[in-house]
Amino acid sequence: MSKTKYVYKFSEGNKDMRELLGGKGANLAEMTLAGMPVPQGFTITTEACTRYYDDGKTIAPEIREEIMEYLAWLEEETGKKFGDAENPLLVSVRSGARASMPGMMDTILNLGLNDEVVVGFAKFTNNPRFAYDSYRRFIQMFSDVVMGLSKKKFEEIIDAKKAERGVKQDIELDVEDMKDLVVRFKAFYESEMHIDFPQDPKQQLIEAVRAVFRSWDNPRANVYRRMNEIPYDWGTAVNIQSMVFGNSGDNSGTGVAFTRNPATGEKALFGEYLINAQGEDVVAGVRTPSPISKLQEEMPQVYEQFSDIANRLEKHYKDMQDMEFTIENGKLYMLQTRNGKRTAAAALKVAVDLVDEGMIDEKTAVLRVEPKQLDSLLHPQFDAAALAKATVVGKGLAASPGAACGKVVFSAEDAKDWHERGERVILVRLETSPEDIEGMQVAEGILTVRGGMTSHAAVVARGMGTCCVSGCGEITVDYDKKFFTLADNVVHEGDYISIDGSTGNIYIGSIPSAPAAISGDFGRFMSWADKYRQIEVYTNADNPHDAKQGFSFGAQGIGLCRTEHMFFEGERIMAIREMILSESVEDRKKALAKLLPYQQNDFEGIYEAMEGQPVIIRFLDPPLHEFLPTKVEDIEALSKDLGVSTHRIRKTIAALHEFNPMMGHRGCRLAVSYPEIAEMQTTAVIKAAIRVNQKGKYTVTPNIMIPLVGEVKELKFVKDVVVETADRLIAAAGIQMDYKVGTMIEVPRAALTAGEIATEADFFSFGTNDLTQMTFGFSRDDAAKFLNYYYENKIYESDPFAHLDQKGVGKLVKMAVEDGRKTRPDIHLGICGEHGGDPTSVEFCHNVGLDYVSCSPFRVPIARLAAAQAAIKNPRK
Amino acid sequence: MSKTKYVYKFSEGNKDMRELLGGKGANLAEMTLAGMPVPQGFTITTEACTRYYDDGKTIAPEIREEIMEYLAWLEEETGKKFGDAENPLLVSVRSGARASMPGMMDTILNLGLNDEVVVGFAKFTNNPRFAYDSYRRFIQMFSDVVMGLSKKKFEEIIDAKKAERGVKQDIELDVEDMKDLVVRFKAFYESEMHIDFPQDPKQQLIEAVRAVFRSWDNPRANVYRRMNEIPYDWGTAVNIQSMVFGNSGDNSGTGVAFTRNPATGEKALFGEYLINAQGEDVVAGVRTPSPISKLQEEMPQVYEQFSDIANRLEKHYKDMQDMEFTIENGKLYMLQTRNGKRTAAAALKVAVDLVDEGMIDEKTAVLRVEPKQLDSLLHPQFDAAALAKATVVGKGLAASPGAACGKVVFSAEDAKDWHERGERVILVRLETSPEDIEGMQVAEGILTVRGGMTSHAAVVARGMGTCCVSGCGEITVDYDKKFFTLADNVVHEGDYISIDGSTGNIYIGSIPSAPAAISGDFGRFMSWADKYRQIEVYTNADNPHDAKQGFSFGAQGIGLCRTEHMFFEGERIMAIREMILSESVEDRKKALAKLLPYQQNDFEGIYEAMEGQPVIIRFLDPPLHEFLPTKVEDIEALSKDLGVSTHRIRKTIAALHEFNPMMGHRGCRLAVSYPEIAEMQTTAVIKAAIRVNQKGKYTVTPNIMIPLVGEVKELKFVKDVVVETADRLIAAAGIQMDYKVGTMIEVPRAALTAGEIATEADFFSFGTNDLTQMTFGFSRDDAAKFLNYYYENKIYESDPFAHLDQKGVGKLVKMAVEDGRKTRPDIHLGICGEHGGDPTSVEFCHNVGLDYVSCSPFRVPIARLAAAQAAIKNPRK
Repeated sequence: MSKTKYVYKFSEGNKDMRELLGGKGANLAEMTLAGMPVPQGFTITTEACTRYYDDGKTIAPEIREEIMEYLAWLEEETGKKFGDAENPLLVSVRSGARASMPGMMDTILNLGLNDEVVVGFAKFTNNPRFAYDSYRRFIQMFSDVVMGLSKKKFEEIIDAKKAERGVKQDIELDVEDMKDLVVRFKAFYESEMHIDFPQDPKQQLIEAVRAVFRSWDNPRANVYRRMNEIPYDWGTAVNIQSMVFGNSGDNSGTGVAFTRNPATGEKALFGEYLINAQGEDVVAGVRTPSPISKLQEEMPQVYEQFSDIANRLEKHYKDMQDMEFTIENGKLYMLQTRNGKRTAAAALKVAVDLVDEGMIDEKTAVLRVEPKQLDSLLHPQFDAAALAKATVVGKGLAASPGAACGKVVFSAEDAKDWHERGERVILVRLETSPEDIEGMQVAEGILTVRGGMTSHAAVVARGMGTCCVSGCGEITVDYDKKFFTLADNVVHEGDYISIDGSTGNIYIGSIPSAPAAISGDFGRFMSWADKYRQIEVYTNADNPHDAKQGFSFGAQGIGLCRTEHMFFEGERIMAIREMILSESVEDRKKALAKLLPYQQNDFEGIYEAMEGQPVIIRFLDPPLHEFLPTKVEDIEALSKDLGVSTHRIRKTIAALHEFNPMMGHRGCRLAVSYPEIAEMQTTAVIKAAIRVNQKGKYTVTPNIMIPLVGEVKELKFVKDVVVETADRLIAAAGIQMDYKVGTMIEVPRAALTAGEIATEADFFSFGTNDLTQMTFGFSRDDAAKFLNYYYENKIYESDPFAHLDQKGVGKLVKMAVEDGRKTRPDIHLGICGEHGGDPTSVEFCHNVGLDYVSCSPFRVPIARLAAAQAAIKNPRK
Repeated sequence: MSKTKYVYKFSEGNKDMRELLGGKGANLAEMTLAGMPVPQGFTITTEACTRYYDDGKTIAPEIREEIMEYLAWLEEETGKKFGDAENPLLVSVRSGARASMPGMMDTILNLGLNDEVVVGFAKFTNNPRFAYDSYRRFIQMFSDVVMGLSKKKFEEIIDAKKAERGVKQDIELDVEDMKDLVVRFKAFYESEMHIDFPQDPKQQLIEAVRAVFRSWDNPRANVYRRMNEIPYDWGTAVNIQSMVFGNSGDNSGTGVAFTRNPATGEKALFGEYLINAQGEDVVAGVRTPSPISKLQEEMPQVYEQFSDIANRLEKHYKDMQDMEFTIENGKLYMLQTRNGKRTAAAALKVAVDLVDEGMIDEKTAVLRVEPKQLDSLLHPQFDAAALAKATVVGKGLAASPGAACGKVVFSAEDAKDWHERGERVILVRLETSPEDIEGMQVAEGILTVRGGMTSHAAVVARGMGTCCVSGCGEITVDYDKKFFTLADNVVHEGDYISIDGSTGNIYIGSIPSAPAAISGDFGRFMSWADKYRQIEVYTNADNPHDAKQGFSFGAQGIGLCRTEHMFFEGERIMAIREMILSESVEDRKKALAKLLPYQQNDFEGIYEAMEGQPVIIRFLDPPLHEFLPTKVEDIEALSKDLGVSTHRIRKTIAALHEFNPMMGHRGCRLAVSYPEIAEMQTTAVIKAAIRVNQKGKYTVTPNIMIPLVGEVKELKFVKDVVVETADRLIAAAGIQMDYKVGTMIEVPRAALTAGEIATEADFFSFGTNDLTQMTFGFSRDDAAKFLNYYYENKIYESDPFAHLDQKGVGKLVKMAVEDGRKTRPDIHLGICGEHGGDPTSVEFCHNVGLDYVSCSPFRVPIARLAAAQAAIKNPRK
């Protein structure tokens, strides 16, 4: 076997070598190939990083040697020498992973300086202040990045110096001051580290490379990766590049620019620069940079060259570029180019414009927009400037996107009352339950102390498109006294707070926000997505309002209509409680008869909202105890209303108590125990369809879905009740009407015996929330307590409730798809768990051969786009 | 395709056609073939029964026709005619399933009688009283079996008649009385059914056949099948046999006999008979039958003939036979033969004797004893006579076998106190928890209101070999006033009750019982089982006592040592509570250090009890809240003991609350969060092994088992802690010692990713309790509430927690076995769920290729035998 090559000159790589060289390295190589002015250097591969971790966090001698070989080459190439006081080579050391992770890992500039070199460097550049400024910056950066010394301490030393000298700005410090800072910095380093500041540039280099490798595993990088689904085992590359100096005088400078406006997508060079500065100064924001257009006046030739390069790069990469450049003594150097991050609006405009400009085709355009980005177009967003000034006081889960601001209330009732008198409210709850629905409907946003991404609050809020931050365990709520505390803040009822459901951030006070704004490009872009998409996108909707919302976002049907949510309003809850408290089948039927007209009416509204598209209605699913009151006063009220003793109510509540409600008497188990429930629900579904069909405008084919099935005989039992009831009603109406009966696949056993279950099911809908819970054996409500340990220890890299676990849960889905189709080739297969709106999960659904995905209304556009991207990447025959 | 044949003459069948003809039919055919005196007839096949259900509970015209054809043949054969008053053919109609289900289904005798035939029959038999007696019996039986009229009503009519006539015995009624009874019976039939009693014998026959088919689905048959794992879809055959009459005079009679004593196995004809009687009279027990030996005096020729036939049958079937015979006017007829049911002791003796007699070989002998039967040898049993007189007042689950009788107490403390003063107690609890262990240890038996076959009470009781009846929901307990009520009985503390853990029956008062008695045949028989067995049998044991028990029953290792059970006694619980309440790793370690010596000591005891056999130790599994007190006074006591505020204790309890504890923070999730727990447990396991090894008597190779793993990285994380700790300790001891680290496969995802997990696991132990829960998606503690509906509707035919679900859970096990072995061919595979002691599940384990099963100590002999039978039926290469 040939020896692994761990180091590449820029001139040895190209843009297709991202996996090995990282994004930055690959693009530096590509620019070098294109003959652009790139300060030369080399890239240490991602494989070297993986090797570093495999070798117990050490850099193998062979890799060190290879680095030194390339360093020698770089000296030759630049005609400078590492550690040579006469003509010193200085380098930058930067991380560069396969996927861009801006700001997540570390960078060191000016490496190669030491007490001796700085003297020569001062002579060589004929600018001693610049030389010593560079040295003190290097000491500072090295101490921070490599040795973990606090940056703040160095700032304090600078501040002390400025105070002594009676000046305000760094720029006012002169060469002697810089020299003194170098002395003070080194002294501080020595006092903290108990060794001298390293004077051997090669030692500095190896330490810096190690620091970059190490930074791949720092906490913020890990969190970023989890959020962006970047695998831990990719590792980062390290780029060693000869330094050019934007801070070597007024004929020098540094800047960043985009080929188009990253906020709006407008086609025009967009960016800013600073004269006489290094990159970090632009980022630090101490001095205010000038807009890039001003460079045209200040250095017309440089501007022209840069503008030309920018143009070439965009044409070359066929995408908006985000570039860093440095001007050293009037000469332009390109330090980086990459596809620029952009807002959703910009992403849409750039994609559409590039098609119109003939640069890319529609398929490529469809691939250019991150599906998740679309969220921000559909929900209000905080004003960016106001947000920048606001302080985050706490963080929960980003459970339902959007920005919301309002006065705090602590109960659904209060939310309704306050809303009626014209207040905008944020509903703060320990957790929500179906009884809170009406309060949730009128709230601007919902904040809960407990519950994960698939808690009641999160699911319902996403359905409504209402902003929600869930599971902020730091909050202590006092319902009685109506206040909550969070990080030393006490927030009373009526106080303003602002929450960001896209980040999970919580702010005290009011932050202005802009409403959702769907641009004209949206429709055109989405039509392309729909053109290439090969699976259907349905929506989850439990009422006509949500159905309309989903339909307006392009849903082609309803994949999950949860009937129980209809049972909570007003008189309905009374009837269902009466049903639960019934002691005979007859009484139960009587109570159910009261629910029938409500439910039938809802279904009619939903059918009509969907204009004849398929509607999949799931039968009663939650354990019955969820419908019973728990508070003493509520029990007493119920007792009076129904004329049933509180003793009997309490006895029923006790009898319905379960150790593990998730695995209890729910789903089709209810219909097996009480077939009359299935009978009533079938009646409502079928009668509503008959009514709508008889109106003649739409042809409705109802789909009845039996939840929580684990065995074909169980499905058959409930299906028999459904078919018997439905056929009777259809015959009585004297019409022809089709209907379908299918099941959820949400219990592992259902997936394992899907071949059998398919004999009785017209369709499968994978309920991947429950399937994930049972396959992993952890409850979503409880897992939050220990999942953090799992992330910290890299056991799980992402939340399996947010992104479908393809290895375990996905294996079950795959088996069920294959076995189901074997039994019934025309079986209709879809997914209606939360994963139906998650792009990587949608891609999996496409690849595994599902016919549709279903998600909450506001995720429909995301799913449409994700499905299109999956189809383009991996088209089905 | 040729027409299905639904009816067979006895002469057309043989003993190998049980599937089609049922056991009774096949054996009647076999006896016919052997030229024995069998009243001729024919068998309607089990396929006809299945067809009856497929056709919506109707008998297809073609089957009716076929029956009539064979009826015509039977008329020819017997020279009698159905419905012919001159020379009438009367028949019996009896069910006969593939597996014997004594008393579960229906029988009708004397069919063919009507108002006209009875007159001729009286003439023909020259015995009018007998003829009318037969007729009234037929009406009675037909009304009961076919029409569902209450038997009791008929008895009342007879009693009224006897009162009128001033007699006591049926036999004292004369022919006129019988005639009158016929009239009264028919009148009653007419008043109830609103039609006349059917006079057409063919109609009677078809109705009777239908009734037998229908009886396959009666509730007691369904319960029997579930208990005996007989599939519902087998169906029953129906035997139509020409009647012979044991009640036609003093030269007639009827009886049942066994070729050996079914209670002891002693080799001698054993049975009883009644002169001038029909079979039902023997069963009814109105007259006292004579022992079969007396027949030798009364009818020496008949006896000789019978004895000879019995001998031939036993030789023919090579097993003890259970025979029914009738003597009609001095002529012997064989009505049935089958392999006789027998007690465990008899089963052992018969099997061993038959080998010694050269009738069967050892393998056949091993197959002759029902593994489950062994239970009765290992546990005390109620005295049969006393039991027959006792009244069952309630029924719970047969959670742990054996018979127990004692005074009722309601707390573990009381159990201990009462036991100390010499009382035998039955501990009655709503449910038990680990804190009750000591009380459970001293109790004769345990009775709980809640909890299934795998509840705490059930599992622990089985481990101890203590009788337990669990989940008797009919009981209402008042702990404060110390009494319980059950079916109108109020039982106070100190009152005697008796419970039968093999049936679940509960009795008021004291019933004497006989202690467990293992006969000399046991050892010899089990040595044969061990000879042919191909998998190992381990025991589950959490302490040295249980380990010794299991070892003495032949366990070859410990498959599951649950470490948490060690944490409940005395000071240990205090230390674990201190650990849970710790707020820093340091404090946690300090508390754990207190537990170390206890745990180490336990392990030493267990290693020594097992004499060097493998011991698999499972690390801490239950959620931590199980260790914390819940009562106010206990919390206050804990607060004082630990010097921790009650507020902090309450806060911790609240923080540990889980919605679904089964799917919460438990198993290896604890070790991931608190690696110091795994470190302490490893230390205890390894140090104990070093100590025992250093003593030099046994060589211990500890096996550490990580529970609830769902992902290989999770296992790796905990394993790293284990290995680091273990290697350090072994190195420090300066010895060589092997140890193994493996995992439970109890979460579906573990089974699905077993190939990966095997890279880090030396062994897998299938935890099929949890695997069943998660695969089905129901909690064993909650499922009892709805499983009855599932049994009633035949969705599940048996409790998946008692018998491993081979279709779903078994598929996961199979996948994991295959994938695990692919990765690591020498991986050691076993099962430690409750199924490890269930014969059909053990057979599955053998077939699927496991290396061992592990079960509670008292089930070890059962598992050994079941494993041997599996190996004999389906030997591995």
